[in-house]
Amino acid sequence: MKSTAVASANIALTKYWGKRDKKLMLPQNGSVSVTLEGLTTKTTVEFDPDYKEDVFILNGEEFKEGEEKQQVVDHLNMIREMAKSDHKAKVVSESNFPTAAGLASSASGFAALSVAGAKAAGLNLDKKELSILSRRGSGSASRSVDGGFVEWQKGEKEDGSDSYAITVAPSSHWPEFRIITTIVRKGPKKVKSRAGMSQTVKTCPYYKGWLETVNEDIENVKKAIKEKNFTLLGETAEYNCLKMHATMMTTKPPIIYWEGPTLEIMHAVMNWREEGLECYFTIDAGPQVKIICLEKDVPELEKRLKDLNGVKDIVICKPGEDAELIDDHLF
Amino acid sequence: MKSTAVASANIALTKYWGKRDKKLMLPQNGSVSVTLEGLTTKTTVEFDPDYKEDVFILNGEEFKEGEEKQQVVDHLNMIREMAKSDHKAKVVSESNFPTAAGLASSASGFAALSVAGAKAAGLNLDKKELSILSRRGSGSASRSVDGGFVEWQKGEKEDGSDSYAITVAPSSHWPEFRIITTIVRKGPKKVKSRAGMSQTVKTCPYYKGWLETVNEDIENVKKAIKEKNFTLLGETAEYNCLKMHATMMTTKPPIIYWEGPTLEIMHAVMNWREEGLECYFTIDAGPQVKIICLEKDVPELEKRLKDLNGVKDIVICKPGEDAELIDDHLF
Repeated sequence: MKSTAVASANIALTKYWGKRDKKLMLPQNGSVSVTLEGLTTKTTVEFDPDYKEDVFILNGEEFKEGEEKQQVVDHLNMIREMAKSDHKAKVVSESNFPTAAGLASSASGFAALSVAGAKAAGLNLDKKELSILSRRGSGSASRSVDGGFVEWQKGEKEDGSDSYAITVAPSSHWPEFRIITTIVRKGPKKVKSRAGMSQTVKTCPYYKGWLETVNEDIENVKKAIKEKNFTLLGETAEYNCLKMHATMMTTKPPIIYWEGPTLEIMHAVMNWREEGLECYFTIDAGPQVKIICLEKDVPELEKRLKDLNGVKDIVICKPGEDAELIDDHLF
Repeated sequence: MKSTAVASANIALTKYWGKRDKKLMLPQNGSVSVTLEGLTTKTTVEFDPDYKEDVFILNGEEFKEGEEKQQVVDHLNMIREMAKSDHKAKVVSESNFPTAAGLASSASGFAALSVAGAKAAGLNLDKKELSILSRRGSGSASRSVDGGFVEWQKGEKEDGSDSYAITVAPSSHWPEFRIITTIVRKGPKKVKSRAGMSQTVKTCPYYKGWLETVNEDIENVKKAIKEKNFTLLGETAEYNCLKMHATMMTTKPPIIYWEGPTLEIMHAVMNWREEGLECYFTIDAGPQVKIICLEKDVPELEKRLKDLNGVKDIVICKPGEDAELIDDHLF
């Protein structure tokens, strides 16, 4: 009745921005990501007939109400429905990185909750089913069940049964691949991804151009991963990121996730690349910049990043592993 | 044979980005701007049969070759062709603000060169002809012949004879209108507008969305000027600016004119507005942010801007006057 799972965050190399079905969390477009070793959420779920209500504790703080609590309860309801159970649950979750600041905490969070929750409820779900269940909590969580490089397929079906992540390549395929996450601000972001992407789909005059070109980016990134073509991967990912942020900032009202240091790091990365140090940036719905690079260049990049104003912290990640059940419970 | 003219810079409230004819400098879309009192270029032109070659001195420095020199010579050639003359010229020009840093120095520069040059060549051109001549030097210069609020009409004709600026309202119509220019960097910009816009037209997947929505912005800004509807003007101008920069950054290769302080000022403006201090930003092809506001809010904005990191200088401008001939020659 009590299970614990660990899942890694992931960073999209081609982005997901916009839903075609808000209830089922079905995306307007597919996306490709890499899981991040070391940026993890660990979650213990216990269903118990004696519990009077669902309890959710995140990083030591109990959420008694609010959006976060509601999302967890909604997710538990889905699991209960699948398990034909009405037991309330206690959920204790810990992330080892700042939540809600564009570091994909909802991705690792809902993947860990799904894997632990399904097991605790006595369900025996396969990877595909876990990816779909995770997707229902947070779209990008569908990409945190399998490790390595994955593609979240857009899918075509109305019930979402074909919208889940599949492996493009395991982490062992490209062990030299690195993502350096720079932390420029630790507070939560002002506009949640969920509200932002809904406005973009409704109001952005460039969103059509996004949808028309994103499949080409997906094909290029998958090709680049399979061939370990770092230049093709980096150029495609960086350009795809700029295209996504351009749709955000031309949403009504505009959504601008970048801050001063975000832009300083972007320019630094472009300048370093011109000088021959090959690296690329990508940015999710927050101010943090992730730098795509290869292992051999990490020491030099680490040195240069520490000299930049506004970089408060850096985290260096290899491609991470699959979400997994562990025995070390949180309560 | 020697004439001197002064022309003001202008700032586009709805932007010009992309040409449909590079030789004739015909734009893909119309634009609306306000001239800026106090940001001026003063230019003296003298045609003399004894001169052996064209001489161009800008801010005390002679340009003996290079792109700047060539553009001036090309412009003199147009004037000579109109005047059926082959006299070489000496051109001395002074701007009272940083050139080539996104402060529209080419606009005031080519407007002053056109007005002074035409007169020195003995031509008697009207405002429309001067706007067209200025346009041939730099598109946005077409908007620096008439003062106040002007619209550069896109025009339809292949020869460009209907692509010139007309007055939307004179400066006296809205004397409380102010533009605060913040200088965040004084060096020249990395990508010239000319090269940048050509790449955007060729490669940006969002450019179609730009062209589809820019006319609505133009109509809204003209309506706002006529009705002195500051909110409509500000919202439209800020959004139009974001749309233009979004096409720039999704150009291949990306063009990112914003720098760290640019974004800090953008966020500050949006925050101040939320607090009730009504102001809007607009940004041209450079890092400087122009703040659109009303006279009554200038002291408070000046105070807040001086407290922001990265703001090196500020210039406060009213709507400026027409370009004009003066008697005070530069040599």
